[in-house]
Amino acid sequence: MVVLVLSEVAATELNLEESFTTHAGIAHTRWATHGVPAPRNSHPQTSGSGNDFLVVHNGVITNYEVLKETLVRHGFTFESETDTEVIPKLAKFVFDKANEEGDQTVAFNQVVLEVMRHLEGAYALIFKSRHYPNELIACKRGSPLLLGVKELNDDVCNGSAFHDAKFLSKNGNPKELFLSSDANAIIEHTKKVLVIEDGEVVHLKEGGVSILKFNNDKGRNGDSLSARPASVQRALSILEMEVEQINKGKYKHYMQKEIHEQPESLTTTMRGRLLRGGSCKAKTVLLGGLKDHLKTIRRSRRIVFIGCGTSYNAALAARPILEELSGVPVTMEIASDLLDRQGPIYREDTAVFVSQSGETADTLLALEYTLENGALCVGITNTVGSVIARNTHCGVHINAGCEIGVASTKAYTSQIVVMAMLALAIGGDTISKQERREAIIDGLFDLPNKIREVLKLDQEMKDLAKLLIAEQSLLVFGRGYNYATALEGALKVKEVALMHSEGILAGEMKHGPLALVDENLPIVVIATHDACFRFVWLLFGRNYIILVHQIVWH
Amino acid sequence: MVVLVLSEVAATELNLEESFTTHAGIAHTRWATHGVPAPRNSHPQTSGSGNDFLVVHNGVITNYEVLKETLVRHGFTFESETDTEVIPKLAKFVFDKANEEGDQTVAFNQVVLEVMRHLEGAYALIFKSRHYPNELIACKRGSPLLLGVKELNDDVCNGSAFHDAKFLSKNGNPKELFLSSDANAIIEHTKKVLVIEDGEVVHLKEGGVSILKFNNDKGRNGDSLSARPASVQRALSILEMEVEQINKGKYKHYMQKEIHEQPESLTTTMRGRLLRGGSCKAKTVLLGGLKDHLKTIRRSRRIVFIGCGTSYNAALAARPILEELSGVPVTMEIASDLLDRQGPIYREDTAVFVSQSGETADTLLALEYTLENGALCVGITNTVGSVIARNTHCGVHINAGCEIGVASTKAYTSQIVVMAMLALAIGGDTISKQERREAIIDGLFDLPNKIREVLKLDQEMKDLAKLLIAEQSLLVFGRGYNYATALEGALKVKEVALMHSEGILAGEMKHGPLALVDENLPIVVIATHDACFRFVWLLFGRNYIILVHQIVWH
Repeated sequence: MVVLVLSEVAATELNLEESFTTHAGIAHTRWATHGVPAPRNSHPQTSGSGNDFLVVHNGVITNYEVLKETLVRHGFTFESETDTEVIPKLAKFVFDKANEEGDQTVAFNQVVLEVMRHLEGAYALIFKSRHYPNELIACKRGSPLLLGVKELNDDVCNGSAFHDAKFLSKNGNPKELFLSSDANAIIEHTKKVLVIEDGEVVHLKEGGVSILKFNNDKGRNGDSLSARPASVQRALSILEMEVEQINKGKYKHYMQKEIHEQPESLTTTMRGRLLRGGSCKAKTVLLGGLKDHLKTIRRSRRIVFIGCGTSYNAALAARPILEELSGVPVTMEIASDLLDRQGPIYREDTAVFVSQSGETADTLLALEYTLENGALCVGITNTVGSVIARNTHCGVHINAGCEIGVASTKAYTSQIVVMAMLALAIGGDTISKQERREAIIDGLFDLPNKIREVLKLDQEMKDLAKLLIAEQSLLVFGRGYNYATALEGALKVKEVALMHSEGILAGEMKHGPLALVDENLPIVVIATHDACFRFVWLLFGRNYIILVHQIVWH
Repeated sequence: MVVLVLSEVAATELNLEESFTTHAGIAHTRWATHGVPAPRNSHPQTSGSGNDFLVVHNGVITNYEVLKETLVRHGFTFESETDTEVIPKLAKFVFDKANEEGDQTVAFNQVVLEVMRHLEGAYALIFKSRHYPNELIACKRGSPLLLGVKELNDDVCNGSAFHDAKFLSKNGNPKELFLSSDANAIIEHTKKVLVIEDGEVVHLKEGGVSILKFNNDKGRNGDSLSARPASVQRALSILEMEVEQINKGKYKHYMQKEIHEQPESLTTTMRGRLLRGGSCKAKTVLLGGLKDHLKTIRRSRRIVFIGCGTSYNAALAARPILEELSGVPVTMEIASDLLDRQGPIYREDTAVFVSQSGETADTLLALEYTLENGALCVGITNTVGSVIARNTHCGVHINAGCEIGVASTKAYTSQIVVMAMLALAIGGDTISKQERREAIIDGLFDLPNKIREVLKLDQEMKDLAKLLIAEQSLLVFGRGYNYATALEGALKVKEVALMHSEGILAGEMKHGPLALVDENLPIVVIATHDACFRFVWLLFGRNYIILVHQIVWH
């Protein structure tokens, strides 16, 4: 793809000498979620050949088909396979209609408010238009959006001075403003941010910022072009991260860096929560955000873990220990499946929402659904101030530090450790499990050092990977405590090596998957010396297992 | 493999003219569950070069490693990678030891009783030995075993007459005796069978049969060679199947036949249970085996579906409808995973065990575990008299008829329909869902005809399959009601086409699996026109979906 883009750029006649004076620009990095990766499916999406409106989008528009049909009837032609394309076209439609009706002065934010009224789904959007030069509009529902504010005290600003900064600053210094769905993109410019909330419309104009609150119900009852949304006054917050966190340092990729950060990230995850020693030599767990709710959780009819992808796998990894220590039945739910089924959730349930970002769309919707059904909601996220952290009744931050790699690594292990601590806390009042709990606490204290040992195998892992890189398929087996590791390992290989790998419960081997196994198919078996080890040995024998044996027990 | 075996046979110098007079033989068909498919891993397994003892085995010996170590220390050399090989070698060891100690008269069944004392796991075994010509010993624990008895009234028997038939018959007619793990292998010879129970040792000797009951506890406390197990008197039962059921008729494979039997098998599944019309025009469900327990099930804290492979997928397919109609939370458990985790099960739970054969080893163990924990156990099987049918508190037979194809087809759909009827019965006392229940009942009545329509697409399906046959990988997506279909479809492709196919919840697409998708990877999307259709459309767009659209809505 990179090659394609470069050749495409080379083929364009660009005058690289020409200079522009512009105060507003948009750009976007996004996986191709709709259609093939191709320039026509890239962002920004446009309203048509005149580029009247341009939009970048993070999220999914669920009613784009209906909107598309309407717009096609009104003469618009679509070029991409994206859901986003309806948005700039809808903006142009709204703008043109207002002008036809004689409203030559319709404001940019009014156009966007009307567009939002028709959109369903989750989104963070930024609009740009040739009708409104030097203006940007950003808005969101469901997807995260941050406004970064950098005050320019020095004389570094060469363009015309920013002015009319309104409530953001009293001192009138010129500013640079940044909009992003992720703090990582902003931190190198400024730590001062405003977390945009659902339904808010941010208008950047003439160097100033104004924020309007879009009231969905009000909008639906009348013509939003004439309705007056309320202006919002908000205070800036300061990001608690350092620019060093987003430097790769000596590593080639963020993912590699984050893998190697695990001894430290896990130590941070456990700091002040896992307690050992002191005057009474007690080994115990203290989770401040949960302690007022532990009694309720212990009496739950069941604990429901809700997550997507890696976060779901982390919960699956923690499930056996939570069941063992608490005796409460644990049900696993993939967030989207719970919503599809509208599965039964009641007041007696405790629902645990696991999400690194705290903004995962499906998990958020599942949280809303669960809150409506009255269950106690516990959040486990890595992002202070995220929607899941705010909207759950209680929770635990995993404190893994900023994770930039798309494939989650250190957040996964920190999630598991937090849920293990959750299990220790929920089960913390039983005498019969006291010894077991202390053994687990000792094990957790040892974990960072064990990971340091494992990370020394970096080169051996690379050598092993070379053996597999040309393969088409890979099966990863595990059972018991290692089932989740098999699923997560296979997911990582899918995401990172783009190889079709599948994680399978080893106990299900004989109920079908066995048919695939021949002398060529590579198999990785996750086998630690636990109660399930002999079963795994039985199934795979010495020839298969030795590889993993080395990995795990080197 | 067939080619390999044929060439191996051709290379052997066999005198095909030579004739033997033998009254006892063993043979075995078995998937290679241990090690590669190779003659050394085939059954029967032998005690060594002299073939002192030969054994065929269905099941898994879990402590074979320990036994192997012991036997190796005593000078035995192992040639196969099977778990079975320890059994004939252990028999030889026991026999030799008894002879060394001066017991020249040790009986064949005593040797086997001593062997059984050391075996752990699940097994059905048949022993043959050159020391005991014309004798066979069969025994079982966990795996099914049937003894078929055919009385020879005609003069068809050319060998020496059978005699001393003991309790099996008073009339002294000669007999043929058959041992098999499956009624299908016996039905063409006789319908009279004896279902062998765990711990029983069947001794075929001099044309007669005697059965001893092996008491595990007694055996452990003393020397079983001198202990006297109790003799057992048992009555024959008559198989309720016809030999026609195991004829392939006009079809090439049993699986193909069973696919095309689905309109009839589903009609049988629903007959007398799904009721419509009559004087009061009521639409209702009557499940005789359940009706005394419905009140208890409705008040359950949760319903736990427990199964393996295809049976698990069938339960997953029925889950949304059960949750919708009953409002009781449903937890899914893969049998082996529940056992590995020793997951919490309590008296307030209702556990539903799904197994076509009613003898699936892991599901059986999970049933024992669940019974110990006091939950109400419901069985859903296709085999009257199977262990799961006998040991559950109540249940429903799926009445799909005998299924011979290894990859389950008609049993899968019958299981789903039975669980849908279960959902209708459990939810049958609520007024608010009356309309919905009646719509489902109408839908179920229509199902056989709809399947007839779908089966007309046989040729189109073959044409589609040809497009995919050369592929390395296949992803099958579904969500909502279609999630289970995606998993089961992928499992079938694995089992039957030996292609790496994976069923994935479509909602999880963006949490990793998306990375795999390029213009080459074939994708099948299961998409019916239900509430989830628009999500699927959104994810995959018109180019991917059209294939399935045709399949489902032709």
